[in-house]
Amino acid sequence: MKRATVLLSGGMDSLVTTAIAAQECDELHLLHFSYGQRTEVKEKWCFQQIANHYKAREARIVDYRWLADIGGSALTDKELKLNVDDSVPNTYVPFRNATMLCAAVAWAEVIQAQHIYIGAVEEDSSGYPDCRQSFFTAMTELIKQGTLAANIGILTPVLHLSKSEIVKLGISLNAPFELSWSCYFANYEACGECPSCLLRLKAFAKANTKDPIPYKVI
Amino acid sequence: MKRATVLLSGGMDSLVTTAIAAQECDELHLLHFSYGQRTEVKEKWCFQQIANHYKAREARIVDYRWLADIGGSALTDKELKLNVDDSVPNTYVPFRNATMLCAAVAWAEVIQAQHIYIGAVEEDSSGYPDCRQSFFTAMTELIKQGTLAANIGILTPVLHLSKSEIVKLGISLNAPFELSWSCYFANYEACGECPSCLLRLKAFAKANTKDPIPYKVI
Repeated sequence: MKRATVLLSGGMDSLVTTAIAAQECDELHLLHFSYGQRTEVKEKWCFQQIANHYKAREARIVDYRWLADIGGSALTDKELKLNVDDSVPNTYVPFRNATMLCAAVAWAEVIQAQHIYIGAVEEDSSGYPDCRQSFFTAMTELIKQGTLAANIGILTPVLHLSKSEIVKLGISLNAPFELSWSCYFANYEACGECPSCLLRLKAFAKANTKDPIPYKVI
Repeated sequence: MKRATVLLSGGMDSLVTTAIAAQECDELHLLHFSYGQRTEVKEKWCFQQIANHYKAREARIVDYRWLADIGGSALTDKELKLNVDDSVPNTYVPFRNATMLCAAVAWAEVIQAQHIYIGAVEEDSSGYPDCRQSFFTAMTELIKQGTLAANIGILTPVLHLSKSEIVKLGISLNAPFELSWSCYFANYEACGECPSCLLRLKAFAKANTKDPIPYKVI
């Protein structure tokens, strides 16, 4: 019995990662974080729809409001204006992947899941330090040193793919892109203008296919 | 300006660690986790009293109820009977130090603190894997790889001390032990019988001094 924990934000990368985990494993335990992100309403809906689609054994939403409370990111702090001109844009949420992976590891240890899937993407990740291979290597060592189970592995199947390769892979796996969401700001129609919408639209265009979600502006 | 984040549960080890940080740093930012532990009422009180005592710049309580929700530990699950006969007792909370340290790192990155203090003790830690030196070494590497700041250091000043050495050190620093709490189960008078009370009582006895907190049974 291959049991997996999957971090599923509801974006296209974590959707395709879930599709891969569904192929490779017998039982899915999906994990979503509610951390005061601006599009939380929509993300939760996507998470639940995708969980239904893949007949997940469990779909757990973790209350991580503390991550918004500490501030420091334009994704969670509405007072901060989006700034993408710096080498790392201020949509960066400090140590987010580490804090979320650690919660996933704790859960995996309790339910005896051997695998944790995360849809991080190195190339398109805007220089976020916690999306790099070296970060996941360090996390694997931390699990080895800090858990009783010690053998929980982190799988990052889309880490080295481009966004358009992820779209193509998702299509080949029949991933329900209409149930995913990438826009940083809008909950109903994607804005089509924020960095995340632009990356997504470019990826679908390059993959010669139409993005099925609604956009305000294209 | 030396700014420190200190993980402060309210136990004797984290109290003495806070006393050390107060000596070594100019500004204290104290962090406490509410994760459904049985003695949370008392721990919160201790945390706030110790924060006042050391004139902390900030005292932040993080809602970590998800850690109880996932279960797996006798510290958070009242259905689980305490079992200390296994090589690691079931008071072990999966990956707890990792999840808490990661939150501390995220906060340190936002407030630009250079140091994170944690009162882990290797010798007396009942074999918990996330209290070992190798775990903290791996965490230091994770911070280097996963943050923009990259230079946040973890300090574990009591890691290699025995419990009685920690009592002696605390006394030499005038640490207010009457504001600390170690009992796993009781909120008003310490039970005097759980593994944590026994370790504490033995430490004070060995240090030839009286523990100032109230006990039901000694």
